[in-house]
Amino acid sequence: MRRFCYFVVVLICAVGAGCAVGNDSVNDVFLLPDPVSDGSLSVEQAMQRRRSVRAFADTSLTVEAVSQLLWSAQGITDSRRELRTAPSAGATYPLELLLVVGAVEGLDAGIYRYQVAEHALARIAGGDLRSDLARASLGQAFIGQAPLSIVFTGVHGRTARRYGDRAERYVAMEAGHAAQNVYLQAVSLELGTVVVGAFRDEQIAELLRLESAEKPLYILPVGHAE
Amino acid sequence: MRRFCYFVVVLICAVGAGCAVGNDSVNDVFLLPDPVSDGSLSVEQAMQRRRSVRAFADTSLTVEAVSQLLWSAQGITDSRRELRTAPSAGATYPLELLLVVGAVEGLDAGIYRYQVAEHALARIAGGDLRSDLARASLGQAFIGQAPLSIVFTGVHGRTARRYGDRAERYVAMEAGHAAQNVYLQAVSLELGTVVVGAFRDEQIAELLRLESAEKPLYILPVGHAE
Repeated sequence: MRRFCYFVVVLICAVGAGCAVGNDSVNDVFLLPDPVSDGSLSVEQAMQRRRSVRAFADTSLTVEAVSQLLWSAQGITDSRRELRTAPSAGATYPLELLLVVGAVEGLDAGIYRYQVAEHALARIAGGDLRSDLARASLGQAFIGQAPLSIVFTGVHGRTARRYGDRAERYVAMEAGHAAQNVYLQAVSLELGTVVVGAFRDEQIAELLRLESAEKPLYILPVGHAE
Repeated sequence: MRRFCYFVVVLICAVGAGCAVGNDSVNDVFLLPDPVSDGSLSVEQAMQRRRSVRAFADTSLTVEAVSQLLWSAQGITDSRRELRTAPSAGATYPLELLLVVGAVEGLDAGIYRYQVAEHALARIAGGDLRSDLARASLGQAFIGQAPLSIVFTGVHGRTARRYGDRAERYVAMEAGHAAQNVYLQAVSLELGTVVVGAFRDEQIAELLRLESAEKPLYILPVGHAE
């Protein structure tokens, strides 16, 4: 399936006159390496060691770590039924993940959107925008220092169509489920993260080029604890 | 510390004229066995295997399993700073956990409140109230069949004092963090659970004797998958 997706992407690029590759291109698709589904740290130890980390070393992340963190948040764990690592009310899946990449080996700085079905990243903007992200987050400087931030957004309409007013609560809960997985996965990878919920919603939305139906929920800077 | 708490509890019981022990008593305090902080299942495998379980076998839970599940949700993992297994906005800790116990070895049926600092349960009502819980949950029958349900509630005022309107979202997110831990811990214990967000809030509040400032958020029935 992933090979097929890659083939389609290559085909689209080959026939598309405007297909650009390089630092300034957008809409590139980057297939992530396969995540692993086993490791050496027990789930209890991950919970025991989990702490919020707000100081990050000046070292980059590997693309394998990024792959694993995104899998933990929303990765597909049952391809037949398309179930994920975190539950969703009525399988409506309102969450989206965006990445603000600063220092990840093999991945240009920029903004990417996680494509769950393909376990891939689609680039939507180039350049190192970490300091802009920190500014929109009320100046929480550690966000600008982390090599990567994962931004959780919610398309509430997907869930509201089925659950009405209750959707607001459900979507926030789902962000919590997925973010807890990222916390625990980070511990297993000997990385650190923290959930940030305080930011200027409109500035984040503008920075990430969100449509009006998609709202920012959480920012999770990730890196090696300093 | 726990021995001291136990001593205080015993002392209060010894001097209190109305201290009752037995099936019909309320306000008993039950110290839970110590949780373990290591296990044999990796965090990645727990995420890979996590599924929502809605059919439960007619077998009881051990009190050790209950201890472990509560620890995973809100247990203290840093006694000096009183940090927990799941994060909380500004360490305001709005979550409370109540138990509707039907079939747990060594624990009378009834309603209990988890006391985080003592890792203990305070009994607030006796009797098997699982079918009442199922009825208040729009008749989702599996809630009546599970040996135990953990009900997450939120005292939003604790968080709103610091974060204002944003608190509603933060409290829901925290419920998600804690519930994801319960999911993963359940997998490690070879148990199953599901998060239920649809119920009649007022009926749940009445059943659990909640004060008006405390609102039900989630019901997690737990048991052996059928």
